[in-house]
Amino acid sequence: MPRRLSAVLSPAEALPSAVTALVVDVIRATTTAAFLLDGGARELVLTAEVAQARAEARQRGALLAGERGGLPPEGFDLGNSPREVHPGRVRGRTVVMTTTNGTRAAVRAAVAAERVGLAALVNVGAAVRWAAARGGDVVLVAAGREGRAALDDAYALGALVARFRGLEPDARLDDGARLAQALFLAHPDPRPLLQSSAAAAALAQVGLAADVEVCARTDALAVLPELAAREGAALRFRPVYPKGV
Amino acid sequence: MPRRLSAVLSPAEALPSAVTALVVDVIRATTTAAFLLDGGARELVLTAEVAQARAEARQRGALLAGERGGLPPEGFDLGNSPREVHPGRVRGRTVVMTTTNGTRAAVRAAVAAERVGLAALVNVGAAVRWAAARGGDVVLVAAGREGRAALDDAYALGALVARFRGLEPDARLDDGARLAQALFLAHPDPRPLLQSSAAAAALAQVGLAADVEVCARTDALAVLPELAAREGAALRFRPVYPKGV
Ligand SMILES: [Ca+2]
Ligand SMILES: [Ca+2]
Ligand SMILES: [Ca+2]
Repeated sequence: MPRRLSAVLSPAEALPSAVTALVVDVIRATTTAAFLLDGGARELVLTAEVAQARAEARQRGALLAGERGGLPPEGFDLGNSPREVHPGRVRGRTVVMTTTNGTRAAVRAAVAAERVGLAALVNVGAAVRWAAARGGDVVLVAAGREGRAALDDAYALGALVARFRGLEPDARLDDGARLAQALFLAHPDPRPLLQSSAAAAALAQVGLAADVEVCARTDALAVLPELAAREGAALRFRPVYPKGV
Repeated sequence: MPRRLSAVLSPAEALPSAVTALVVDVIRATTTAAFLLDGGARELVLTAEVAQARAEARQRGALLAGERGGLPPEGFDLGNSPREVHPGRVRGRTVVMTTTNGTRAAVRAAVAAERVGLAALVNVGAAVRWAAARGGDVVLVAAGREGRAALDDAYALGALVARFRGLEPDARLDDGARLAQALFLAHPDPRPLLQSSAAAAALAQVGLAADVEVCARTDALAVLPELAAREGAALRFRPVYPKGV
């Protein structure tokens, strides 16, 4: 029986259990996560709360990254912008990161699935190769925004569905996967689509509009952040480089 | 300032408050509701529970319609199939109806909005004329399925968005509205899209596959079921025939 590929567009929806989950927060957490590991960070530790992020960073001697309201909290080394990631700054380091929606989605995915990866447009190919390399049902989890489905995340879910179907034409899609795929297929160029999202509008308001173009760079990176361990309330990700399947 | 047009694809998401709400359960509750009133039913009373529907029907001398698991409960006069609606059967009658997802969505909409209409593909034009005829924000509410976004409802939300934009090109769309509209614009023919939905698969399993084609008849009806009163836990709808705006 071909495997099931589900796409959960809304953070308000329950996740079906699956072997493999890909968590998507295109603008910007999972994009930035991929850039951090591609830039040479040794590992990435996600936490839900700012205070917890500070404590983890102190304890691990790590860089502190993330945002609230789009901007880095007081004393953070980095925000949540992929444009801030310079290899000279992150290489060999552990990075502790906290973001509004992305972290929460990763925590939910870690409950529903055995293995969890972080996906965005910048690593869509790597993400699909990683997910397809092992059997079992796959669920795509959109971080969303303010408790609602988000256009940018839905689009990236669609890109993942379309690529996955390219490898496994028989995969059984749920309604969410069909919906996301239709959005993706109707918009071959991600840039105008991402630009029209509420997330892009919010970034423009804090002077970070230029991040959107970086988030739209499909297949720019070969890395997949893979959940290595849950350590208390923190999720530790390591970089993997999935080969073709 | 142009009005806001929001589309809530998932029944798990909170509804933004709005002046006007259109509730959509294409397969099949809002389609059947439109057929009932178009067929001459005097009014339609929605209830959440089967026992409550029986009590309301007895008290009102009404026909009893609806489904659980796609089929009419014991002793019901009608199921939830638009193909069962014959004017000779419903003309002049009150119909009490209970369905799995559609009723719940209508109840939620009645809390969030001042005025509530029932929309489907069969009355998309009437629904948009009705909603546009009064000012204020509009929210489109998908009934969904099993707590998740449903492909058929998302498609109809997209049809409503596209039509609304035709009347009011400046209306401000949220991410949900953009997502739904993209799905609609990518599939000019609703039939294959509806056929690929989980709702259609469930209907096929109970021998009601032929209902789907009826649900896909865009603009077949000129009626809009409008919420006239909340009577205890029941919602009473009357037929209105919106003129061009
Ligand atoms: Ca986001
Ligand atoms: Ca339905
Ligand atoms: Ca229903």
